[in-house]
Amino acid sequence: MAKKVIIVGGVAGGASAAARLRRVNEETEIIMFERGEYISFANCGLPYYIGGAITQREKLLVQSVSGMKNRFNIDIRIKTEILAIDPVKKKITARNLVTGKTYDESYDTLLLSPGASPIKPPIKGIEAAENLYTLRNIPDMDKIKAFVDQRSPKHAVVIGGGFIGLEMAENLIDRGVDVTLVEMSNQVLGPLDFEMAAAVQEHLVQKGVKVILNDGVSSFENQGKTVVLTSGTKIETNMVLLAIGVKPENRLAKEAGLEIGQRGGIVVNEYLQTSAPDVYAIGDAVQVSHYMNGEPVQIPLAWPANRQGRIVADTIMGKKTAYKGTLGTAIAKIFDLTAASTGLNEKQLMQAGVVYKTVHVHPSSHAGYYPGANAIALKMLFSPDDGKIYGAQAVGKDGVDKRIDVLATAIKGSLTIYDLPDLELSYAPPYSSAKDPVNMAGYAAVNILEGNVETIQWHEMEQMITNREEIIDVREPEEYEMGHIETAVNIPLSQLRDRMGEIKNKKVIIYCQAGLRGYIASRILVQNGFKPINLDGGYKTYSTAVM
Amino acid sequence: MAKKVIIVGGVAGGASAAARLRRVNEETEIIMFERGEYISFANCGLPYYIGGAITQREKLLVQSVSGMKNRFNIDIRIKTEILAIDPVKKKITARNLVTGKTYDESYDTLLLSPGASPIKPPIKGIEAAENLYTLRNIPDMDKIKAFVDQRSPKHAVVIGGGFIGLEMAENLIDRGVDVTLVEMSNQVLGPLDFEMAAAVQEHLVQKGVKVILNDGVSSFENQGKTVVLTSGTKIETNMVLLAIGVKPENRLAKEAGLEIGQRGGIVVNEYLQTSAPDVYAIGDAVQVSHYMNGEPVQIPLAWPANRQGRIVADTIMGKKTAYKGTLGTAIAKIFDLTAASTGLNEKQLMQAGVVYKTVHVHPSSHAGYYPGANAIALKMLFSPDDGKIYGAQAVGKDGVDKRIDVLATAIKGSLTIYDLPDLELSYAPPYSSAKDPVNMAGYAAVNILEGNVETIQWHEMEQMITNREEIIDVREPEEYEMGHIETAVNIPLSQLRDRMGEIKNKKVIIYCQAGLRGYIASRILVQNGFKPINLDGGYKTYSTAVM
Ligand SMILES: Cc1cc2nc3c(=O)[nH]c(=O)nc-3n(C[C@H](O)[C@H](O)[C@H](O)COP(=O)(O)OP(=O)(O)OC[C@H]3O[C@@H](n4cnc5c(N)ncnc54)[C@H](O)[C@@H]3O)c2cc1C
Ligand SMILES: Cc1cc2nc3c(=O)[nH]c(=O)nc-3n(C[C@H](O)[C@H](O)[C@H](O)COP(=O)(O)OP(=O)(O)OC[C@H]3O[C@@H](n4cnc5c(N)ncnc54)[C@H](O)[C@@H]3O)c2cc1C
Ligand SMILES: CC(C)(COP(=O)(O)OP(=O)(O)OC[C@H]1O[C@@H](n2cnc3c(N)ncnc32)[C@H](O)[C@@H]1OP(=O)(O)O)[C@@H](O)C(=O)NCCC(=O)NCCS
Ligand SMILES: CC(C)(COP(=O)(O)OP(=O)(O)OC[C@H]1O[C@@H](n2cnc3c(N)ncnc32)[C@H](O)[C@@H]1OP(=O)(O)O)[C@@H](O)C(=O)NCCC(=O)NCCS
Repeated sequence: MAKKVIIVGGVAGGASAAARLRRVNEETEIIMFERGEYISFANCGLPYYIGGAITQREKLLVQSVSGMKNRFNIDIRIKTEILAIDPVKKKITARNLVTGKTYDESYDTLLLSPGASPIKPPIKGIEAAENLYTLRNIPDMDKIKAFVDQRSPKHAVVIGGGFIGLEMAENLIDRGVDVTLVEMSNQVLGPLDFEMAAAVQEHLVQKGVKVILNDGVSSFENQGKTVVLTSGTKIETNMVLLAIGVKPENRLAKEAGLEIGQRGGIVVNEYLQTSAPDVYAIGDAVQVSHYMNGEPVQIPLAWPANRQGRIVADTIMGKKTAYKGTLGTAIAKIFDLTAASTGLNEKQLMQAGVVYKTVHVHPSSHAGYYPGANAIALKMLFSPDDGKIYGAQAVGKDGVDKRIDVLATAIKGSLTIYDLPDLELSYAPPYSSAKDPVNMAGYAAVNILEGNVETIQWHEMEQMITNREEIIDVREPEEYEMGHIETAVNIPLSQLRDRMGEIKNKKVIIYCQAGLRGYIASRILVQNGFKPINLDGGYKTYSTAVM
Repeated sequence: MAKKVIIVGGVAGGASAAARLRRVNEETEIIMFERGEYISFANCGLPYYIGGAITQREKLLVQSVSGMKNRFNIDIRIKTEILAIDPVKKKITARNLVTGKTYDESYDTLLLSPGASPIKPPIKGIEAAENLYTLRNIPDMDKIKAFVDQRSPKHAVVIGGGFIGLEMAENLIDRGVDVTLVEMSNQVLGPLDFEMAAAVQEHLVQKGVKVILNDGVSSFENQGKTVVLTSGTKIETNMVLLAIGVKPENRLAKEAGLEIGQRGGIVVNEYLQTSAPDVYAIGDAVQVSHYMNGEPVQIPLAWPANRQGRIVADTIMGKKTAYKGTLGTAIAKIFDLTAASTGLNEKQLMQAGVVYKTVHVHPSSHAGYYPGANAIALKMLFSPDDGKIYGAQAVGKDGVDKRIDVLATAIKGSLTIYDLPDLELSYAPPYSSAKDPVNMAGYAAVNILEGNVETIQWHEMEQMITNREEIIDVREPEEYEMGHIETAVNIPLSQLRDRMGEIKNKKVIIYCQAGLRGYIASRILVQNGFKPINLDGGYKTYSTAVM
């Protein structure tokens, strides 16, 4: 007899699973329940329809109910909410939100892909805030767009400096709305480390966003028209966009007694099976293992949801397929910048007590002599033992996605930093340099591990300055004049061999703009009996972070 | 005592080696000889200065003689040609081209990076052709640019449809010159396979280039103002750009008795050592092993030259480092298109007698609903035994470089097609889709090897049509009307389950636009007792290739 599979949630994870289930088996009875009016829509596109980059609303509907029915012969029940699941009797209770009718439906296998919902903490005055929005689905989007279209707000407060917060800041600015961004931690974009996020913050400010860090919302007054921060600051505004993160939609699972992780994600094994044998769960709702270290994490992104949907369908159809964990590759466009990351960041490594090394490089997105080249700030974290790549982050105007994708691939291929110089990447002037930025990061990292250079990180400089260590700026005088580390003395690299006598101490800190000249200077000095230490990432990384 | 290293050639390979030699060792005496006036220039940028995209000539000079001297303390002797090498006495003979003075210089180690020179066959009338140019270095560029600037040619014949030929065609068109491209083989861009190159040809024609394939030059008449083709066609023109390939600069090596490969490249071992123990050679002048199969090849590109320069310096300084072969990753911008490839192509696999499978997909460069998305034609070749990736090619307006780089990295990480769906690549709407094109190629390839679909290639269709096999076009009627395979009957995928009865034979060829719907149709049909065969890459690949 044909199997009966019920799916809860009809968007990224759910619809992907349904499609693959049908491709694997024509006979299976597949019922897909969706609480909302739309299935298979592009959550990730929502900010851009508000901002106007996407002009046709229907483009966000990747599959319509009828299209999906015709192509995949799936029983799709929209506007129908699953109220409860009974993993013992293997049935669910559904309510048709139009008719109000409630009914039970039995299943052989149940798949949960209910997603996550925006966190909305019980801040004082939040319920009365009429102008406060969160963004998760098409109706949310419609409401925000209608408000912006009809009320032409002059000012908005975006609360939360994550991907969605920043995307909304940009899209509101594109609509002519002044934006104040409020972020509780000391940086935007949590997946990046501080100095990398600093470059994004600088850009936000350039684009007219007022960025407030280290401050949270303590209350809303005046129906949300006044946002009161923990610091006491009051901001008058026309609208509030709350984007401080999402929490897994775990109510059904919880009430059915399924195991839930510490941070609320449904616990699943490598086959995406919950603690109830015939119940599977995927997407934003689940807790997964981090690809790098197996730690339980929640990484609410579309790739994992789609991948898990594909995999779980195979498993349900009898071909057990393991999910190998989430690497957390993430990216966002922030005005003219792209910020992306993969693997673990420095904060995570420190927290996990992992010993690591860091390298920062600032290579050009493509050949400097070809128009449109821009520096990419690229940071890589790796093991001092075997050169294993732990993670990478990049910020720049162009070519950031490519380098992070190459590094994400390198990680999955178990390549180490020693392999990166050997990556033969495509080169012509409009696309890269003969040594690609990833090659360059590899070279620089290998030099650190092979002892060709000793480096110091931007956050360690404070101590050096305080200690009055000797610091040499090896850039050209014009560069030095434009800004330098206060206690640094200028000896340009091109004169270093002749002016080495001016250096007083064996131990000397060297820096240049991006790290390259400092490295060359180090090579010269170390062979002349000095103990040079090169500022990793140069003045560029340092000044972005400390200023 | 300090070692004395002599380098012949001061550009990509030579200058890279010199720089690294110095970083490794301050004491080594390094003499770099360069026949021309410039060292360390950007060969790859030359076409774009002629075309006007690069406006400052000095930008092409990556390092000046004085800059390189100051930074790296290298004895640089420009306008000095090495006339002979004596590997037994370990000395070279140099001639200062300004003074005419000839002198000997001894070495401990000699490094040859003399590059390659444009092939200029003894075609009748070639010597008398005053308007005939080749492009290799700055003086060549200056001459061509001066001719275009001063003489405003109306028409040019570009001979050779390789990377440089196409780049020059584009840059001449940018300067308002009408271009006829003459290519002897049946396609442009040899590294691509026929159907992939066909897309490039289509684009060239759209951009106003007159493309003549399967025809060569038999003679030049009228001081080069008439180009006579093998077919008898005569083309009247104002200028001729000859770009039919390069040949290794092997004269020095040959005369010194060093081993030379069949196609003229200097033979080196994995340490880039020639048959004379203290003589090393790198760059365009050498024959290398192909990374995929170890076959001897000549791949005159900048990445290998730079990489080999770095590696050979380490080996010379006592840290033996092997060059792992060249994968042949290559890319070119052709007007609005990018064409790129890595690894082996189908022609090479066939020639080598390797059994392989092919997949073509046409995914969107980024989310279709976000502005600027364009289909990428992506072809992948892989082993039917273990899914090993042999090579990949891509053509499209955007995101081609990224996908080829990811695949080049996957190859170097020994990932197979089975690993590609698991690549967690960065996704936000401006950059990709939740399933990246590389994931998609992986999924489609796995489906072939796992027997989820049987496919047929575009070049096998002719036979099917002749055999009067049943062919079903599963696209929508509007698509069918716009063009279809003559003998094909239209049954849209959305109606297939209901209209299956109209299909007469078990064996039936299915196709759609890109391959996806044909695959879904195959899945439906195979489970209903048919033996469907899906046209790989769909009507898109097919019609590009056969029309
Ligand atoms: C504004 C925005 C921008 C984003 N941008 C990106 C991006 O750029 N890149 C990226 O990787 N990810 C992005 N994401 C995240 C991505 O959309 C999610 O990770 C992905 O959609 C998760 O898939 P899912 O199937 O788990 O949940 P969803 O796609 O949210 O689907 C869950 C569905 O289940 C339904 N549901 C829940 N409970 C029930 C119930 N009891 N009964 C019936 N139906 C129910 C919900 O109505 C919902 O439609 C973005 C998300 C948002 C909101
Ligand atoms: C127009 C053009 C576009 C290109 N575009 C690309 C591209 O987009 N991507 C890519 O990867 N590659 C490209 N290349 C190829 C790339 O430039 C070469 O692969 C690379 O420069 C090879 O480095 P090399 O050191 O072997 O030779 P070269 O860089 O050519 O250097 C060799 C030098 O040796 C000198 N020399 C030779 N013999 C002697 C002698 N006897 N005495 C003294 N000096 C001598 C020559 O004068 C020459 O300057 C392009 C090349 C050209 C010409
Ligand atoms: C639209 C949706 C239902 C599609 O699911 P899907 O059918 O699995 O995905 P696609 O349309 O991308 O097709 C992928 C399938 O086609 C195959 N395929 C793709 N291109 C192909 C080609 N050219 N030839 C042959 N097969 C091809 C793949 O192998 C894969 O099939 P498989 O899983 O059986 O191996 C689902 O992705 C969805 O709802 N997306 C929107 C929601 C969302 O993801 N939101 C978050 C991001 S904004
Ligand atoms: C200009 C040229 C001499 C430079 O050679 P180079 O010094 O080896 O190369 P780069 O300037 O890219 O620097 C690379 C070095 O800097 C290091 N580096 C780069 N960025 C760094 C950073 N931020 N911090 C520390 N080190 C860094 C690398 O590790 C590498 O050093 P290593 O080889 O000792 O490991 C040579 O590449 C050349 O002549 N190029 C032009 C010609 C050419 O390539 N033509 C063909 C293409 S158009």
